[in-house]
Amino acid sequence: MNEMNQSALNDKEIIPENPSDLIQCIAEDDYDWLTRQLAALFGFSDTFMTLWDGQQSSLKSFSGKREQVSEDLLYSLSALVHSAKDFYLIENLSSHPQTEKINIPSRLNFFVGVPFKTKAGAVIGAIGLMNDIVPASYNGHQLELLRILVMLLTDNIELRYNHKSQTDKEKLINRKFTHDLRNPLTVISLNAEIINMENNLSAGVRDMCNQVKQATGSMNQLIDTFAAIQKNAQ
Amino acid sequence: MNEMNQSALNDKEIIPENPSDLIQCIAEDDYDWLTRQLAALFGFSDTFMTLWDGQQSSLKSFSGKREQVSEDLLYSLSALVHSAKDFYLIENLSSHPQTEKINIPSRLNFFVGVPFKTKAGAVIGAIGLMNDIVPASYNGHQLELLRILVMLLTDNIELRYNHKSQTDKEKLINRKFTHDLRNPLTVISLNAEIINMENNLSAGVRDMCNQVKQATGSMNQLIDTFAAIQKNAQ
Repeated sequence: MNEMNQSALNDKEIIPENPSDLIQCIAEDDYDWLTRQLAALFGFSDTFMTLWDGQQSSLKSFSGKREQVSEDLLYSLSALVHSAKDFYLIENLSSHPQTEKINIPSRLNFFVGVPFKTKAGAVIGAIGLMNDIVPASYNGHQLELLRILVMLLTDNIELRYNHKSQTDKEKLINRKFTHDLRNPLTVISLNAEIINMENNLSAGVRDMCNQVKQATGSMNQLIDTFAAIQKNAQ
Repeated sequence: MNEMNQSALNDKEIIPENPSDLIQCIAEDDYDWLTRQLAALFGFSDTFMTLWDGQQSSLKSFSGKREQVSEDLLYSLSALVHSAKDFYLIENLSSHPQTEKINIPSRLNFFVGVPFKTKAGAVIGAIGLMNDIVPASYNGHQLELLRILVMLLTDNIELRYNHKSQTDKEKLINRKFTHDLRNPLTVISLNAEIINMENNLSAGVRDMCNQVKQATGSMNQLIDTFAAIQKNAQ
């Protein structure tokens, strides 16, 4: 217990060691559902979500004609989106310096992407929408709505992650606490037993020894109950 | 500790005793910001959010000409929205049976509202958007986006609430645990001290008594440290 930092639970904001831990907190189905919804609602033919673990991107979900779109394209676009403050827009994919050398289906020209950014400013992924032309319904308001959606979603991912991190940390502390309590309790219990084995004890001392043994028994029960609660907790 | 339910921390979904506790988890500023954004982005002149505590609605935020809109109107509309599965739409406020008797500014005719529903299906509030006519940009896609926004926001509110509830519950359990440990520990410490005061103890028994006293000392230190960690935790 002594080597534990008392402020271990004080971090109001918990930064994951691996940013991809964050995005793993949402179920695959939710990503797929959201990607499909975004494609339909914003009027884009192809949409995707990638996650960034600090080293590389990986594709989380895709809506559209996946077989026509190379991973090269998705990861190049994601990299551009990560560098953007709010969003990244390309009017003609085939003439953009970062994508012109990649094989792009002719039906994809217009691209807009929004980065997933945590409150602390860490990039944890990107959402990208592609279409042949600017969709009829697409305008500045749509982009702003997309940004609010991504913001709420990122916040949501962070909340889940922080909750899980904190619960894990507390479990560790509680486990260490109950473990550390057992050793001195065993010392007490053993010594009380050995003292009780002496022949020349007064009735009073023997009685006190028994009280000590009883007390260690109830402490062991308390610790067992507490450990069981921790084990059952989510 | 014994009267504690071991499954106290097992509820994967925590239902608040008072649903309004849920919605209080988001800062006022966030509601105001979101209400303003929704008004602008969906092209409505007046938007509002109300919260429902199971008994009555209260206004959380409003964007538009507040002085022209009566609370009667907002609460009547909220009640209609609560009863809706997904959304509630009124094309002409002045001819709707629930609002025709209320004084409504002539600039407000078209209304659309979406309920805040928790995963367990409890209604915790409503968001309402009003305008003179159907806004030019408003269509089924916009409504679907609004519903996704409200869903993400409700999820967000629930996550915050569950996190807080669980932390509060754990704190209570930990406090009870450390408190309950102190009593038997005092019994042990006192008895060891009284035994040690006997005159006719062998050196071995006296030594064991001292070991018991040392062990109670380190247990008390452990409990102090654990209690301090709990106190400092958010």
